[in-house]
Amino acid sequence: MAQRTAPRHRVVIVGAGFGGLFAAKALRRADVDITLINGTAYHLFQPLLYQVATGILSEGEIAPPIREILKRQENVDVKLGWVTDVDVAAKKVLVSAPGIDYSVEYDTLIVGAGASQSYFGNDQFADHAPGMKSIDDALELRARIFGAFELADLHEDPAERERWMTFVVVGAGPTGVEMAGQIAELAHRNLPGQYKHIDPRQARVILIDAVDAVLKTFGDRLSTRALRQLHLLGVEVELETKVVGVDATGIDVDTPRGRERIASMTKMWAAGVAAPPLSRKLAAATGVKTDRAGRILVEPDCTLPGHPEIFAVGDMMALDNLPGVAQVAIQSGRHAADQIKRRLAGRETGRKFTYFDKGSMATISRFHAVASIGKVHVSGFIGWLMWLAVHLLYLVGFKNRVTAVLHWFVSFLGRGRAERVATFQQAYARAAVREYGDPFERRRVTAGPDAGK
Amino acid sequence: MAQRTAPRHRVVIVGAGFGGLFAAKALRRADVDITLINGTAYHLFQPLLYQVATGILSEGEIAPPIREILKRQENVDVKLGWVTDVDVAAKKVLVSAPGIDYSVEYDTLIVGAGASQSYFGNDQFADHAPGMKSIDDALELRARIFGAFELADLHEDPAERERWMTFVVVGAGPTGVEMAGQIAELAHRNLPGQYKHIDPRQARVILIDAVDAVLKTFGDRLSTRALRQLHLLGVEVELETKVVGVDATGIDVDTPRGRERIASMTKMWAAGVAAPPLSRKLAAATGVKTDRAGRILVEPDCTLPGHPEIFAVGDMMALDNLPGVAQVAIQSGRHAADQIKRRLAGRETGRKFTYFDKGSMATISRFHAVASIGKVHVSGFIGWLMWLAVHLLYLVGFKNRVTAVLHWFVSFLGRGRAERVATFQQAYARAAVREYGDPFERRRVTAGPDAGK
Repeated sequence: MAQRTAPRHRVVIVGAGFGGLFAAKALRRADVDITLINGTAYHLFQPLLYQVATGILSEGEIAPPIREILKRQENVDVKLGWVTDVDVAAKKVLVSAPGIDYSVEYDTLIVGAGASQSYFGNDQFADHAPGMKSIDDALELRARIFGAFELADLHEDPAERERWMTFVVVGAGPTGVEMAGQIAELAHRNLPGQYKHIDPRQARVILIDAVDAVLKTFGDRLSTRALRQLHLLGVEVELETKVVGVDATGIDVDTPRGRERIASMTKMWAAGVAAPPLSRKLAAATGVKTDRAGRILVEPDCTLPGHPEIFAVGDMMALDNLPGVAQVAIQSGRHAADQIKRRLAGRETGRKFTYFDKGSMATISRFHAVASIGKVHVSGFIGWLMWLAVHLLYLVGFKNRVTAVLHWFVSFLGRGRAERVATFQQAYARAAVREYGDPFERRRVTAGPDAGK
Repeated sequence: MAQRTAPRHRVVIVGAGFGGLFAAKALRRADVDITLINGTAYHLFQPLLYQVATGILSEGEIAPPIREILKRQENVDVKLGWVTDVDVAAKKVLVSAPGIDYSVEYDTLIVGAGASQSYFGNDQFADHAPGMKSIDDALELRARIFGAFELADLHEDPAERERWMTFVVVGAGPTGVEMAGQIAELAHRNLPGQYKHIDPRQARVILIDAVDAVLKTFGDRLSTRALRQLHLLGVEVELETKVVGVDATGIDVDTPRGRERIASMTKMWAAGVAAPPLSRKLAAATGVKTDRAGRILVEPDCTLPGHPEIFAVGDMMALDNLPGVAQVAIQSGRHAADQIKRRLAGRETGRKFTYFDKGSMATISRFHAVASIGKVHVSGFIGWLMWLAVHLLYLVGFKNRVTAVLHWFVSFLGRGRAERVATFQQAYARAAVREYGDPFERRRVTAGPDAGK
């Protein structure tokens, strides 16, 4: 652990998501000692989580070890642990790891602990509709999705079978749209011919959102195209529809037609994010305000008001209504690093963070994506090629790029899904959480690899 | 489900390990209706489990979906479920799956439910020294192994650090030798340079067995070579050493020097196998005897005495002291299929099963394996090339072969490990088992993908 007598400026980074990791990388040549603390040993490339959930990629391909990414960077010390609190007066973070609690002192602190799933006050939904924020979530959804087809095949009762063959995705942002599209592809392209008693093509995939458009932030034109493509895939899209209840066998919704119930054993939640508890703790310790989602209202330079030594980046900061996407996290992380370098060089700091919008994109099916880059709107195959290029560019690690391309090749050109394993542990972990208390509670404090998409 | 009025001969196969899967494949062109029941949706290529545990391969690469393997075979119906009992009089198997119990009638039954880990009456060891029989086991060990280095790096107390840096493998058969070799490679080749506070090369890897040689069944010459290679890798081999206790922080052993304690947080068990409970149930129902490991004492043709309609194959049968290896399972599964085809063709049955020994092999490190094929004993690089060829040949599925080769390339020529992800669920599943009862209890009844190596 860093000593008080350390000669060099000590930077502690909480979270190795897009914000924290890119901040650390940007400090590669800086004369600082960096401690990077994360709740898992890996960086998570969250935009591809849905591909782990639907059997295209293995978890290793989107979650390379932080140590391996940074192994050539001498000035960084990677530590496993959940940051439970920040002692602002003593300038240290308190950390908890399995069987050991420790603290790390900082001169400058960068907090990029990401976001966790928000059920808008209905946390009881989580048991029946897992979110899409972590590898655990993705593997649990994988087990549920493929398991649903297995169980549908066993049931002779038509109603029971239909329940198992109905998949509901809540939230029509990029994650929800991509999940719904991939489940539809599974049902129509990958799984047919593999079951004796069901036709996977009869599976229903229902995408629900309270707003009046899919991919609403992408603008009317792409939204309309995405909707059309989802319909072509056979996805039923229910807009202006609010979820009022979720239980083991179905979901209750308020639609423009009135209240309805959808019988479904497999629900997933991609509807909202909230800042982790660490955000509110930090706000309380510094007297800084948070927005409704719990994000810290930072100064224009991403520091906390009155605390120029503390930066909040990515999903944890509330600034200019910036969206919770990877690029905001990456750029704000780099901005924080840049401010630190300026400060050490004795140059003026307090520079405003300016977000350069590189655009947003979402794949809807293989060979079909929508992308908006500035005023350019692209959809279809060209959009998909752009999606492919961008994701390859940002996917961390050469090895992962090679194997991911291979798996994409197999999945998109062929009919296979390379990763369909479900473990027993996934089935029992949720029950364990109920019994033992939530191990993720700690993770939610700082989690780490949760940079939005 | 098969109807009593079904016109075709109904074959039920319990377990989609090497025995069951190859029996089903051998019946591809037979005029039968096959139901293949397995506790997981995938076939497990168990000989490579240790590579999943040590981060080389993803679980999908060694566990392809049974449905996908058999998708072109019209006469087989794949069902998810654990066979809990066999009603020999009514000729049906009773099956349990999540939320549904069902039964399937048979004219001929092939039971190939594999083996589970045996702790020789010390089941309490399992909590602290997981076995190596399933994907869950491998992922749990992966989490423990990589997690141990993370935690060692956090501890400042030398004794604590040493405990986290000491890995004990119980059992010096192929699985134990391969695990010990791979952990040593991790420590010496893959991980150095990635930690600030520990040198992974100082990790101790201790391989323990009660007998007086490693790979004893391979014969003196290969055994000696394997031992030398293990020593070169830095593995400490403790022979004629019995485990008398295993707890959270260490392991107690009776060595030729007397009783000793090894402080170690990470222990794994590769020491013994036992037939699943279904074996004893079936024996009780048919009045057939089992051997000490619970395996069914079958007739020379692999059928149960007095029950020519029931075959036991692979690890579940006790015959001629055949070893619990994949080849015995594959060949006995095919033999059962052959007998069924003969019976249907009205030809003489009751043929003795003759095992053709194709030899055995084990990798000790990259580029180094020992192999014994008949009277030919090979070790070193040539042995390793043979290992590579054989495993590629038997690894199921073209895709898996391609990506596995790629991952081997990365791991053996480079210094990477592609799959190092640990999930939270792995940490909590074991606790859940204690609380809720053992979900694996059901699995142990028939498990399926447990054909020995």
